[in-house]
Amino acid sequence: MSILEQKMRSSLRRLGVRRTSSVVVAVSGGADSTALLDALVRQQTKRGVPASIVAAHFNHLLRGAESDADEAFVQALANRLLVPLVTGREDVAAAARAGKKNLEATARRLRYSFLMATARDCGASRVLTAHNLDDQVETFLMRLLRGSGPDGLRGIHPEVDLGEGVTLIRPLLEVRRAQVLAYCTHFDLEFRADSSNASPDFTRNRVRLELVPLLRAFNPRFDEAVARAATLLAEDEEYLERRAAEVIEESAGRLEAARLASAPKALRRRAVRLWLSRARRTLARVEASHLEALEELAIEGSDGKVVELPGGWRATLEDGWLTVKWLDEAQKTQD
Amino acid sequence: MSILEQKMRSSLRRLGVRRTSSVVVAVSGGADSTALLDALVRQQTKRGVPASIVAAHFNHLLRGAESDADEAFVQALANRLLVPLVTGREDVAAAARAGKKNLEATARRLRYSFLMATARDCGASRVLTAHNLDDQVETFLMRLLRGSGPDGLRGIHPEVDLGEGVTLIRPLLEVRRAQVLAYCTHFDLEFRADSSNASPDFTRNRVRLELVPLLRAFNPRFDEAVARAATLLAEDEEYLERRAAEVIEESAGRLEAARLASAPKALRRRAVRLWLSRARRTLARVEASHLEALEELAIEGSDGKVVELPGGWRATLEDGWLTVKWLDEAQKTQD
Repeated sequence: MSILEQKMRSSLRRLGVRRTSSVVVAVSGGADSTALLDALVRQQTKRGVPASIVAAHFNHLLRGAESDADEAFVQALANRLLVPLVTGREDVAAAARAGKKNLEATARRLRYSFLMATARDCGASRVLTAHNLDDQVETFLMRLLRGSGPDGLRGIHPEVDLGEGVTLIRPLLEVRRAQVLAYCTHFDLEFRADSSNASPDFTRNRVRLELVPLLRAFNPRFDEAVARAATLLAEDEEYLERRAAEVIEESAGRLEAARLASAPKALRRRAVRLWLSRARRTLARVEASHLEALEELAIEGSDGKVVELPGGWRATLEDGWLTVKWLDEAQKTQD
Repeated sequence: MSILEQKMRSSLRRLGVRRTSSVVVAVSGGADSTALLDALVRQQTKRGVPASIVAAHFNHLLRGAESDADEAFVQALANRLLVPLVTGREDVAAAARAGKKNLEATARRLRYSFLMATARDCGASRVLTAHNLDDQVETFLMRLLRGSGPDGLRGIHPEVDLGEGVTLIRPLLEVRRAQVLAYCTHFDLEFRADSSNASPDFTRNRVRLELVPLLRAFNPRFDEAVARAATLLAEDEEYLERRAAEVIEESAGRLEAARLASAPKALRRRAVRLWLSRARRTLARVEASHLEALEELAIEGSDGKVVELPGGWRATLEDGWLTVKWLDEAQKTQD
């Protein structure tokens, strides 16, 4: 059994995929997702795990004829492997323009909502994506370069709860890209030029082509070293976030300043972030400096003091409680 | 006021150095420690903080006439700044040979024991060393390359309790090397060629000369990004280690397997490490794989099962308790 199959198998077991599981596999047609689908079908044939596999392909309509050729390629692959394929298509560029949002973020949002809908339609409990160890290392490094704290350095999550009983899992997260390519070569699998190689993400490409090779020259097992650090950081983060949730429990929209102030520093940061993400429903555009300002407001602020947050939100300290409110444009102008 | 003085001043305040404090400054004669001593004397003159400064120079006798010239240089510097100087000397190479220990580790041990003795003799509560932000970044990267977990990635500690009421502090840990050199240029300070530039530590030099410049090309404020991550990791680590200590409390040399097994993963790792470091009195030569084996022994092991540890130590699970014992050579041969 190839190293990819071994690692995929132990990941799937750890991530709770069993003989009775139904899964949806996201397939772009690149090397990673082609190998994942092929290896998964191979395992199903040999071991009967998982019970059912549905492939899902999302056409972003971003590269004209090339996007259509990707879709046709995935259709042919699914036919050959005797796997049902669900396709979705959306004009991502138009959606981004209409919503005045970043293209990549819009693409991700639409893609994941398609995958979620597909899982729901198929009664699947798991959505599989083919992120690999190289993606993990690149993400870790990009976040380190950007100044992320421990929660960012934990990297790509092997498992994300999507709600409604569906979990996103990444069973190739410990498999190197070179091992994916070796798998494709070994089984003579064709794949479409990986879109990530032509990614518009300039920093990621530079990290991949300049930084990672230098780090591997220091330690040929650098990728595994980062993966280990990310795993340990994820374990810490999980525990710390659970403890931080206890700090804000029963706060029902408001946050008790005294309770926050008496918590250890490691929990304070996380409690503020968690509280804000619940009260404001998103952390979009919130930066570390905003969270620090809220922490300071709770600990040292005097009653009636205010912290302005992105998107017209405002946090206030009143009678020892932090609250956050959205001010509409009219109110803001009146101020 | 220069950036070095500003950052030193706020670090000293944060680290509890006051108008009444007595401090010992470790001075090698390199740029970092020369600047630290000079800036500290300057602050004392202007603000009366700290109350007293003693310089301490340790001659490792490793580079013959050059080592003696370093000592003479530091003596002249101390004379000029009107600071008392305590010097110590030890044949570090001979001590390493005699103890069959690594040269760098021996040098560090002897140097810190000299600094501790000097602090005790002077009634000082603080020992200051001149590690800077570049040292911090290099240490972080070297540990990342080596596969350290969160506890290693927290990097150089700004503050270490040396016992007997003495604390080691590093008030230049947020100052870049370039800022140290600018300080020296600005005040026309001479210094000895920094021994770390000719360091026998090949990896550190490569990290400094090849890796760091590339990372700064990605983000000119990369150093500060790493420093921030290290600070947050240190806060997390402090909290997690405190909680882990609760897992092993009352264990008196033994560790209750059931109690360890029921702790969250993030605490288990740390509890095992802490327990072993107390029971065996050192973690020398203990690797992550040993700690994992101990964790597994506690969680899944059956009674009477054994884990061998470096240096002739052995951990055993008996009646639900982990114990660790040192087997002398005679016993080992009998086994």
